[in-house]
Amino acid sequence: MKEVTVYAPATVANVVCGFDILGFALSEPSDKMVVRISDKKGVTIINKDDFDLPTEASQNVAGVALLAMLDALNGEVKGFEIESTKTIKPGSGIGSSAASAAAAVVGANELLNKRFSNDELVGFAMCGEAVASGAKHADNIAPCIYGGVILVRSNDPIDIIPIPAPPLYVTVLHPQIEIKTSEARQILKKKVTLKDAITQWANVAGLIAGLMKSDYALIGRSLTDVIVEPMRSTLIPQYDEVKKASLAAGALGGGISGSGPSVFMLSSDEATAHRVEAAIKQVYDKVGIDFHLYITTINPYGVKAIV
Amino acid sequence: MKEVTVYAPATVANVVCGFDILGFALSEPSDKMVVRISDKKGVTIINKDDFDLPTEASQNVAGVALLAMLDALNGEVKGFEIESTKTIKPGSGIGSSAASAAAAVVGANELLNKRFSNDELVGFAMCGEAVASGAKHADNIAPCIYGGVILVRSNDPIDIIPIPAPPLYVTVLHPQIEIKTSEARQILKKKVTLKDAITQWANVAGLIAGLMKSDYALIGRSLTDVIVEPMRSTLIPQYDEVKKASLAAGALGGGISGSGPSVFMLSSDEATAHRVEAAIKQVYDKVGIDFHLYITTINPYGVKAIV
Repeated sequence: MKEVTVYAPATVANVVCGFDILGFALSEPSDKMVVRISDKKGVTIINKDDFDLPTEASQNVAGVALLAMLDALNGEVKGFEIESTKTIKPGSGIGSSAASAAAAVVGANELLNKRFSNDELVGFAMCGEAVASGAKHADNIAPCIYGGVILVRSNDPIDIIPIPAPPLYVTVLHPQIEIKTSEARQILKKKVTLKDAITQWANVAGLIAGLMKSDYALIGRSLTDVIVEPMRSTLIPQYDEVKKASLAAGALGGGISGSGPSVFMLSSDEATAHRVEAAIKQVYDKVGIDFHLYITTINPYGVKAIV
Repeated sequence: MKEVTVYAPATVANVVCGFDILGFALSEPSDKMVVRISDKKGVTIINKDDFDLPTEASQNVAGVALLAMLDALNGEVKGFEIESTKTIKPGSGIGSSAASAAAAVVGANELLNKRFSNDELVGFAMCGEAVASGAKHADNIAPCIYGGVILVRSNDPIDIIPIPAPPLYVTVLHPQIEIKTSEARQILKKKVTLKDAITQWANVAGLIAGLMKSDYALIGRSLTDVIVEPMRSTLIPQYDEVKKASLAAGALGGGISGSGPSVFMLSSDEATAHRVEAAIKQVYDKVGIDFHLYITTINPYGVKAIV
């Protein structure tokens, strides 16, 4: 049976001021998935990790994504089989479900000689994401598939804009607590003041310009969120202290990854990223919650498929 | 008496989705101002046009801007004299007061051997603008002084980001009606839905990326305003028809200039800008309001001073 092995990276969605529209891919961690065309109808799911994710296709993000693709193939392919070995912990806020969905559709597309465009793949994968988050959003899936920093200008119709960016080092803190995306959404107010909205889009504009100009100082000044962070940061123990210590250690800025609980901080160089890591460790060692803390970079490639 | 002659361009603020943060300078029209250092205390204003603007310094935008500069000079210079010949009609929505304020401070700064930075000049000129609009905003002043497309990421502290842009042709419609900035501000709702705010900052991000990538199609897709246009467009007769006709004629997009009544449409080339002009004329010929209609370009230089 012809098969392809796919590696799908973790991703950071929202990116401080870019709520619901910005995301970037991380070099580490990434999920591994083997995808095969199968004679069995539908999607057969084999989990080779300990996360105990559903094997029923209609309840599995990769399964739903592939069912959407099978629909589009209109009977031409009977089914797919996937063997999933996840490293990205579900619920960590760094695009675990997006990685599963993206890996599945990119792998299947390789086996179909790249029948579908990247934008079509994003569309299939979004159907999978909707199972996990209750909403169709591409801000994890698009950077996972495309790599780099991605602007999702519109989800419907999908409009994905790669944003050139200078090298950035990412210090990630993953407190071992659970925050459900749906709950994190409920905490948001439905209305915001026009004044705050203007501040937010000024910073979004500054961030895009800063990234495209490789202007680290401007990136830093623009990494300000007056809308979502004040509400969601209450869900993460010692969030303000972590941020304060990171900035004092030289981080450009950072915030909650997706809907949390992971927190990311950006630095312009590796040495600073290590100082930020040490500063966060000092804060979190006292909190009494287990946590993972690591340094990675922005992954410019996205999903990799090896036939 | 040493003097300098300054030409200050008209400017378009807001730029559709970029409410309160974006602006660009126009090649035409521009104001002429002669600035002199004077032995007379304060600011002496001589108006050489028919607009009947106040000659009392404290009530004149250029006067207030120069008074702010005199304050900063702390007695070193006694006063300034300005001779103003305006072409940009006050109240037209293309930064008439900003041009006066910018001309005055740039001219004075030339006579002082460029003592002040551009950002400081923006600060002085903003004091002048506040007289006209009741609020300190730099989204006309900054593009007037800097030229090109300008992002004002923050008014306090001032943070001005030039945004590289491809050639753009601007068709401007100026219906001869009066809309006061303060009234145009009152029509705005104080709160907006988070959903609309997200749509707006997605488009702002798309517009910045489109300009910096010279991607005309992306610029066009991003020129969408779901927050301010729906409210303010009601102040301009046949606004929807003008916009519809412009887009049908090939305009990338456009909207209300500042708080109106001028309306601008962007095109990627001159021939299209002429088609857009013809399409707008066809609509406005039937309205029964006097109007000016002209084509210009984005002015990359800003205020020019000739000693």
